[in-house]
Amino acid sequence: MKLLEDKIRCDGQVIGTDILKVDMFLNHQIDVNLLDEMGKEFFRLFKDKGINKILTVEASGIAIAVMAAKYFNVPVVFAKKSSHKNVGDDVFKAQSHSFTHGKDYEMIVSKKYLSENDNILFIDDFLAGGNAAFAVLDILKQSGANLQGIGIAIEKGFQNGGKKLREMGISVESLAIVDSMNEVDGIVFRN
Amino acid sequence: MKLLEDKIRCDGQVIGTDILKVDMFLNHQIDVNLLDEMGKEFFRLFKDKGINKILTVEASGIAIAVMAAKYFNVPVVFAKKSSHKNVGDDVFKAQSHSFTHGKDYEMIVSKKYLSENDNILFIDDFLAGGNAAFAVLDILKQSGANLQGIGIAIEKGFQNGGKKLREMGISVESLAIVDSMNEVDGIVFRN
Repeated sequence: MKLLEDKIRCDGQVIGTDILKVDMFLNHQIDVNLLDEMGKEFFRLFKDKGINKILTVEASGIAIAVMAAKYFNVPVVFAKKSSHKNVGDDVFKAQSHSFTHGKDYEMIVSKKYLSENDNILFIDDFLAGGNAAFAVLDILKQSGANLQGIGIAIEKGFQNGGKKLREMGISVESLAIVDSMNEVDGIVFRN
Repeated sequence: MKLLEDKIRCDGQVIGTDILKVDMFLNHQIDVNLLDEMGKEFFRLFKDKGINKILTVEASGIAIAVMAAKYFNVPVVFAKKSSHKNVGDDVFKAQSHSFTHGKDYEMIVSKKYLSENDNILFIDDFLAGGNAAFAVLDILKQSGANLQGIGIAIEKGFQNGGKKLREMGISVESLAIVDSMNEVDGIVFRN
């Protein structure tokens, strides 16, 4: 998606060869017009999949998921990352690890909001090693819900999460795939 | 806002006299059409205040803020609740306490995204004792940004956060104000 790639080039910040900061427009400050275009693009990519619910993970995934959900006209469910008092015990759980936060966490979704009747689009801001996505797969398996696709804003194509998920036959669509990056040469996107 | 009050009556769950669970449509599963109407209503209430940025707090505030921001055509900034590796050190910080999580936390906003040129609408899902709002006031004071108003989805009118903020002269608009609630009699909304 050219609009997103241009935004990443202009306002993204590459640190070393692994960290891409997009907090100017995606995960601290949010450009809602860009977000709206991303939601529209996810709808174009997945509109024929019978999606009845969009699943994401707090916190950065929520904004993108909600914008996309407007086009699909379906509810969003966001997985929580720790034990909230108000969630209750009746939950699906999976372990994951956040490299951003440098720690393990428990991903939680209430059993009320996922069932075998659901056709799920999982949306997230980043896909790198795939830790969050694999925790989501675990939760979907527990619930019996059907994963119809994964929509990612920015995939780090030089890590293997996307490759592993596609090899499992999952439809993964990333709006921008970074094949390599460094502070001197900038970012190379996959065609 | 009648639509929200009706939704709270139908799908909200009162536990004791203090906990109102709205995870069916607001803070775990999200009804995006309701959210869109809420965003529209915040725009109606604050459209003449010269808002150029909407501030919220992760995670539950993000969805509402983003929907409202579409109507205002301004960016959203969401305060983070813990030290993220990728935020950097150049941040405004304030201490707060989450009753939902039962713990203190540090609220953080990068200095890049708040300045004295900003006219801020702060949006959040709940207002009760006002802990999050007072931490936001602290951060806004550090940044020099101007608070033009506070938009809340659900205010617990039987706690004193809203009262204290209004006594400070702040324009606080809550789409639904719960004056009392219990499991037997249900919810009484303020007119």
